[in-house]
Amino acid sequence: MRIARFSIDGNVAFGAVEGEPSTPGSTEGLVVDVIKGVPFADFELSGTKVPLDKVRLLPPVLPSKVVAIGRNYAAHAAELGHEVPTAPWAFFKPSTSVIGPGDPIVYPPFSQEVHHEAELAVVIGRLCREVPRERVKDVILGFTCANDVTARDTQQTEKQWARAKGFDSSCPLGPWIETGLDLAAASDLAVTATVNGELRQAGRTNQMINSIEDLIVNITEAMTLLPGDVLLTGTPAGVGPLHPGDEVAVTIEGIGTLTNKVISRG
Amino acid sequence: MRIARFSIDGNVAFGAVEGEPSTPGSTEGLVVDVIKGVPFADFELSGTKVPLDKVRLLPPVLPSKVVAIGRNYAAHAAELGHEVPTAPWAFFKPSTSVIGPGDPIVYPPFSQEVHHEAELAVVIGRLCREVPRERVKDVILGFTCANDVTARDTQQTEKQWARAKGFDSSCPLGPWIETGLDLAAASDLAVTATVNGELRQAGRTNQMINSIEDLIVNITEAMTLLPGDVLLTGTPAGVGPLHPGDEVAVTIEGIGTLTNKVISRG
Repeated sequence: MRIARFSIDGNVAFGAVEGEPSTPGSTEGLVVDVIKGVPFADFELSGTKVPLDKVRLLPPVLPSKVVAIGRNYAAHAAELGHEVPTAPWAFFKPSTSVIGPGDPIVYPPFSQEVHHEAELAVVIGRLCREVPRERVKDVILGFTCANDVTARDTQQTEKQWARAKGFDSSCPLGPWIETGLDLAAASDLAVTATVNGELRQAGRTNQMINSIEDLIVNITEAMTLLPGDVLLTGTPAGVGPLHPGDEVAVTIEGIGTLTNKVISRG
Repeated sequence: MRIARFSIDGNVAFGAVEGEPSTPGSTEGLVVDVIKGVPFADFELSGTKVPLDKVRLLPPVLPSKVVAIGRNYAAHAAELGHEVPTAPWAFFKPSTSVIGPGDPIVYPPFSQEVHHEAELAVVIGRLCREVPRERVKDVILGFTCANDVTARDTQQTEKQWARAKGFDSSCPLGPWIETGLDLAAASDLAVTATVNGELRQAGRTNQMINSIEDLIVNITEAMTLLPGDVLLTGTPAGVGPLHPGDEVAVTIEGIGTLTNKVISRG
């Protein structure tokens, strides 16, 4: 099931997206069946269906925190001239950095070089800590696309990345949460980023250094994850600059496409 | 005014703390006047007064995010053998790391060396971004004490600090928010940490490399701060290990004392 969060006529709801798009990445031909309740507990479909192009898609969750991982693909570490870390490097992106499909990525005032980083995002379904490896599957609600937007120049001068990777609009998420992928399937998906339709990043989630299980064990050893919290799993090679006016699209096989425009502060 | 958040008989409320403690750091002799509403908007005191030792103090705010600053006191950078950074190094502590006065600091499973870091905490009073220097005073609700508890061994092996400084219980805040200090006063306060009554850290906020104004300008250039968000301003020299059974107390002149016990995982 593809669970979207959306607004229509000023109301916000979750819904199940049905149908197949007429062209890849479009919403034409899709409808959303409004969910009664929230997807973090038992819920029912209302049967009220709305064409997806009549609603505004929002970030599919409002996470209390986004935990992200640096250098989890060897080829990406190499392209930035870095060694591969021996353990995951976890950092946070705050709730205020999250935007939805179609929302603008806004250049922050201190950066002249904002990069795209296409990533598989894991959406947590239940409160959990110290999750054993065999229980990881039970704490996952589903998967979505993320763009770990990064002020690369700032990242190079500030050794902790709160500003470089935590600025407003630096965490596009969406278009929806795919709940139909098991861990094995999620661990072998194509991840791409295009800029203005041109392919820039292409990798597979089977190239991750630390698997989804590794990461959730590692993070929940330290901290409680709450329903709706999000884990970004690292980006494959091919990161590069975004300029005002660009349109960046992150596509993950079996999930969908997350598209955002880049704008300057205005 | 000293604004506390507390629970009594299962209810949670804010209140204004009145009176002076019979001995420093104790709650004896203090009463709390229950606030009608929340301190982030206009509010009234109810006149209903409860002895402070009859309530359980909670973290004085539930921040959506805590933004903290690394190496903001030159003597602390030096004691860890580090250079002083040219710009603030901002990192996040998540909402799940926040605990209140008297709550236990729990050793995480991956660390054998958890350190105290006494810090002045700024509590944000209103939604703000790109705050000009002359408006910084307007976005501050008040000040409290913080302990930026750090798994020092983990911090040395993981270059991003989400686990080392973001584990559950790593952000004690309290005992209350002092709203009566202006920026000039807050910028010249004694900050101390004691462990089992023995002085370990002693500094003054006038030793900060980046002032409170510098930090709020720098952070809000990147991100929106929400009411209740918290800024930790860095720790003076004298950090050191905590062991299960220790009692650590952070005292800031003009604010109060934040005391927590350290325990091992149970």
